[in-house]
Amino acid sequence: MKKGLLIVVSAPSGCGKGTILRQILKDEKYYYSVSATTRKPREGEIDGVHYCFLSHEQFENLITENAFLEHASYCGNYYGTLRKPIEENLANGHHVILEIEVNGAMQIRKLCPEAKFIFIAPPSLEAVKKRLEHRGTESPEVINQRLQQAEEELNCKNQYDYCIINDVLQEAIADFKSVIRAEELKIQNA
Amino acid sequence: MKKGLLIVVSAPSGCGKGTILRQILKDEKYYYSVSATTRKPREGEIDGVHYCFLSHEQFENLITENAFLEHASYCGNYYGTLRKPIEENLANGHHVILEIEVNGAMQIRKLCPEAKFIFIAPPSLEAVKKRLEHRGTESPEVINQRLQQAEEELNCKNQYDYCIINDVLQEAIADFKSVIRAEELKIQNA
Repeated sequence: MKKGLLIVVSAPSGCGKGTILRQILKDEKYYYSVSATTRKPREGEIDGVHYCFLSHEQFENLITENAFLEHASYCGNYYGTLRKPIEENLANGHHVILEIEVNGAMQIRKLCPEAKFIFIAPPSLEAVKKRLEHRGTESPEVINQRLQQAEEELNCKNQYDYCIINDVLQEAIADFKSVIRAEELKIQNA
Repeated sequence: MKKGLLIVVSAPSGCGKGTILRQILKDEKYYYSVSATTRKPREGEIDGVHYCFLSHEQFENLITENAFLEHASYCGNYYGTLRKPIEENLANGHHVILEIEVNGAMQIRKLCPEAKFIFIAPPSLEAVKKRLEHRGTESPEVINQRLQQAEEELNCKNQYDYCIINDVLQEAIADFKSVIRAEELKIQNA
């Protein structure tokens, strides 16, 4: 059985990353690694689907048990990636998609140099602002906080392997598929 | 102006490489580097389009002038890649496609480490034999010689970046486009 690819995806809030990944994940060759977090669920978010929602105590116990491939603190909450389901799915030939923020991604880079790193960027910061406002789930203060964060995160994109600009959604999805197909065709991944 | 990519393509005879490249080259963002050779034109081959057909003397003079990026001898003839049109087209933002055999490709690898190396492979040696026979331009002896050569060249595919298997033509063309798009999206090529 050919091992799957480990694909790390980061994007500032409001880049449409979720929409792109929902389309990509319709293909059963992908496995979406559900992150664990101590942040509160947003409306409509389901435990075990969008995140594994944990208490601070549960999260810190798992840190002690070395159960996380990486974990980081962001806006006052823990976020982490559980090791076991990733390793199992890669061995089964699935491409595993890890959706994590920049600091977590850079931890993965050190631990898994064979992973592929994709950054999804907005066409502009103005576009991010519009999308966050349109989503309507965040207060103006949180939107401002996320915009500042977005600007900082955009400065990190050069640490990734690929950058996909999500201007036209269907093109961004096609670009994502091209990157994965090219990686499948790489001799070193054969 | 963003520089184009230098794309080196090799394939054993009878892999359908020519058919794939004709489709790819319909897009004006590509420039096909016409090789120089001392071999005789096949029926239908046009000087300056399929090859620059040169005499042994002309070829050897150009070697002395250092006009070739690489050159090699293959089945008793010289084949070579002229340096100037490649450099000009890369600077103009075109992706330059170099179609060369394995030894020439490995010379380019040393000279241009930033180039991308694509190997087009047949689904099987039996398929190569059928295609060469179907083409009907070569004698049985030449076909046997080319089959032996094909087998040797297939052993070199691990020295390339990507391997595209041409079983279903349209899939091979799509794979080729995916590889180029992914390379365009690479941060290091941005």
